[in-house]
Amino acid sequence: MPKYGAFISQMITLPKHLSLYTNSIPLNSMAPTPLTKAKQAKQASLHLANLTRTQKDKALLAIADALLQQKQVILSANKKDLRAAAVLVKKGSLKSSFYKRLALDEYKIQEMVAGLKSLVALPDPVGRTLSSLELDKGLELYQVSCPLGVVCFPFEARPELVIQGSSLCLKSGNAVLLKGGSEAAHTNNALYHLVKNVTENAKVPSGWIQLLETREELHAVFGMDAYVDLLVPRGSNAFVKYVKTHTSIPVLGHTDGICQIYIDRAADQKKAIAISIDAKCQYPAVCNSVENLLVHKDIAKRFLPLLYTELAKRGVEFRGCKRTQEIIPVKPATEKDWDTEYNDLILSIKVVDDIAEAIAFTNQHGSGHSDAIVTEDEKTAHLFLDGVDSSCVFWNASTRFSDGYRFGMGAEVGVSTFKTHARGPVGLEGLVIYKYLVVGAGHVVSTYTGKGAKPFTHRRLDKIWER
Amino acid sequence: MPKYGAFISQMITLPKHLSLYTNSIPLNSMAPTPLTKAKQAKQASLHLANLTRTQKDKALLAIADALLQQKQVILSANKKDLRAAAVLVKKGSLKSSFYKRLALDEYKIQEMVAGLKSLVALPDPVGRTLSSLELDKGLELYQVSCPLGVVCFPFEARPELVIQGSSLCLKSGNAVLLKGGSEAAHTNNALYHLVKNVTENAKVPSGWIQLLETREELHAVFGMDAYVDLLVPRGSNAFVKYVKTHTSIPVLGHTDGICQIYIDRAADQKKAIAISIDAKCQYPAVCNSVENLLVHKDIAKRFLPLLYTELAKRGVEFRGCKRTQEIIPVKPATEKDWDTEYNDLILSIKVVDDIAEAIAFTNQHGSGHSDAIVTEDEKTAHLFLDGVDSSCVFWNASTRFSDGYRFGMGAEVGVSTFKTHARGPVGLEGLVIYKYLVVGAGHVVSTYTGKGAKPFTHRRLDKIWER
Repeated sequence: MPKYGAFISQMITLPKHLSLYTNSIPLNSMAPTPLTKAKQAKQASLHLANLTRTQKDKALLAIADALLQQKQVILSANKKDLRAAAVLVKKGSLKSSFYKRLALDEYKIQEMVAGLKSLVALPDPVGRTLSSLELDKGLELYQVSCPLGVVCFPFEARPELVIQGSSLCLKSGNAVLLKGGSEAAHTNNALYHLVKNVTENAKVPSGWIQLLETREELHAVFGMDAYVDLLVPRGSNAFVKYVKTHTSIPVLGHTDGICQIYIDRAADQKKAIAISIDAKCQYPAVCNSVENLLVHKDIAKRFLPLLYTELAKRGVEFRGCKRTQEIIPVKPATEKDWDTEYNDLILSIKVVDDIAEAIAFTNQHGSGHSDAIVTEDEKTAHLFLDGVDSSCVFWNASTRFSDGYRFGMGAEVGVSTFKTHARGPVGLEGLVIYKYLVVGAGHVVSTYTGKGAKPFTHRRLDKIWER
Repeated sequence: MPKYGAFISQMITLPKHLSLYTNSIPLNSMAPTPLTKAKQAKQASLHLANLTRTQKDKALLAIADALLQQKQVILSANKKDLRAAAVLVKKGSLKSSFYKRLALDEYKIQEMVAGLKSLVALPDPVGRTLSSLELDKGLELYQVSCPLGVVCFPFEARPELVIQGSSLCLKSGNAVLLKGGSEAAHTNNALYHLVKNVTENAKVPSGWIQLLETREELHAVFGMDAYVDLLVPRGSNAFVKYVKTHTSIPVLGHTDGICQIYIDRAADQKKAIAISIDAKCQYPAVCNSVENLLVHKDIAKRFLPLLYTELAKRGVEFRGCKRTQEIIPVKPATEKDWDTEYNDLILSIKVVDDIAEAIAFTNQHGSGHSDAIVTEDEKTAHLFLDGVDSSCVFWNASTRFSDGYRFGMGAEVGVSTFKTHARGPVGLEGLVIYKYLVVGAGHVVSTYTGKGAKPFTHRRLDKIWER
């Protein structure tokens, strides 16, 4: 299979002990190897691509029903994981925040069910005609959206991502390889089997969902770019970075979320304060909260004391450049501060000379995620919007709007700071690509080449491809 | 710069001797390191993104003018390369076909000029409003196309790719790192300096075009995914495979071109013959020519002798399965034959039982590039179009149509068999992505969360983003 030929050479970049996965001998006679899992997913994906919306939505609703019916099974599996985790928390080898993310309850199950129902309400991302063109009379070209094929969803901690990852893939017609944290093994297994059984009963092709059980299995998959079309890691920045640097499979995600707000000299100070509070305090632990606040030198003396009062009473700790230190009582910011994602109630402040310095700072220290300018000056705003190379750039609005749901996508696959395929908040569109379908009546290329070549018409059609 | 933090760890996958590129000490005090080149390109890309169409087109036309004016300089640089290559051809260490691809002449320069002029005629791929949405009253979201940033164009042999690669990048607002074959070093250098001087005079940001001079430099760049957004290798399949397996930068290209034609039992035999001749003989050396011909068992006895006569007189050599061998005098096809891209006048033929076998064969042995069905039966055609997982699927038309120009794209960046970002023939759209621009009036997320949350309107706007 030449299509998969790259696989062997890909393995070169993997640790040596993983090379045993290059052949398909199972590790033990019972358990399928990661290669077998990937091949089964690939095989299933060919059929999955042609499920109708009705079939896919029916299967999604069946998962929702099963979650409610088998709630007790899921919660008792979760209890096993929680008991083991509690021991680790006591020992100090697991953070209590991790324990919280691990825990499922009635409410979280309701949330999963709601998520499934909102996916059902979304239109099918597959089979949409993206363009149509007459190449010549009777020779028509259609660009039609289709699934990627196989998507791998590695995630940490939160077991509800079994449901989220698999349902996003099912709706978009992709097969899925899931890999959860080992701490949630019982819960992940229970949810995986629930989804697998329910969907296969609903005639989704067998093998479309696979569970990778160990970190070694995931590593082996990192080398299988012949079978796996996209990796969507969910978890800490360090985790996403780890994935990104260990695979040549395309990755959708973001490693850092270092966001800036620039308060221009022509800023409306009321808007500036409101946006700063929102972007720093509304939910500081997330990637689209602000880390560096830049302020124009002409308004720093008026603005910074106001900002200080409002944020300090909300518990924010400050770092600042020299000029900031002269205005408000803040710790000095080190060079490292400008490059740090605090994910916490900490804000670094820098006074800048002009819009050019604000843009340059943002492009240098930001992570290309979300940045905002506050100004009433349209020209300055456009300089910032054009000059900042980030996936989302805001004018007089909070960076916290960077989110698939707020952007009206219905479902969020992730936020990407990479620059190919999909960028910024990514909806189901991030899990599809397209194929070209050409319908002729015996047309051949030789008609259109060489002496006396017939010209193409290349006339735009507004036709929809009907399956 | 956290944005580039992944760089160091990326280097792990590169050969050890390349690790010297991880610091920025120049190899010698005169020559910039690959890292310096990549950084300069990244810096230039931030400004390049905001050039107007007029500025870019003016620079493109200036290149065209300079090519005509400095024709003799280019051709005499080319002569130096050709003299050295001629010695290698004599020694037998270079193929004469390679020598041909190396050679420039008056006609090829005219072709480069024509290519530049057709690029000028194309609309700007940058700054297009892809969608616009009202999130709430006074809060608007725009999705606007923008350049990727830095594109690396490694290529073999053909020096005209210096012009093609740089002009495609310029039109799409991307900085470019070029790396040509060492056999064309004089020509590449002359063309590179021409483009660099002419465009920088036309106010394209300095540093936007960079020439990588050695294979080691290219290897170093493979690890710089913090600076380089896309690799577009042009050359042999082996070359593209090599690039793909040595980088975690996204790659646009195709490794294999193993295309199938399936002649269904309901095929119009006249169309089937014409399409087979076109797909095999019109230009056998290219990736979209057919390698495997599948024929339904019910018409094999009638069709194969006809096909044999027509193709044999055009010099085609045959391989066939057992059933084929019983009908026409062909060599036996080995398993390897079904997986081989001949790029030559050789055709492997297999008799299949039904459409299901034809689809399964195509998905197993094909390379996901271009495949065709010949049939008058619409239902069977749709099974093939839906079931074949390739970038282009044809019904009653030759696979040879798979091409950016024929598909009406104006310019072709490449043909991709990978499944993220861009697939099939790729025009300038393959070199752009988008950013989200949000305009508010002091809007904050806290308004839309928690108890009493205001709902979003998510109303489609049909507004164009004006810079």
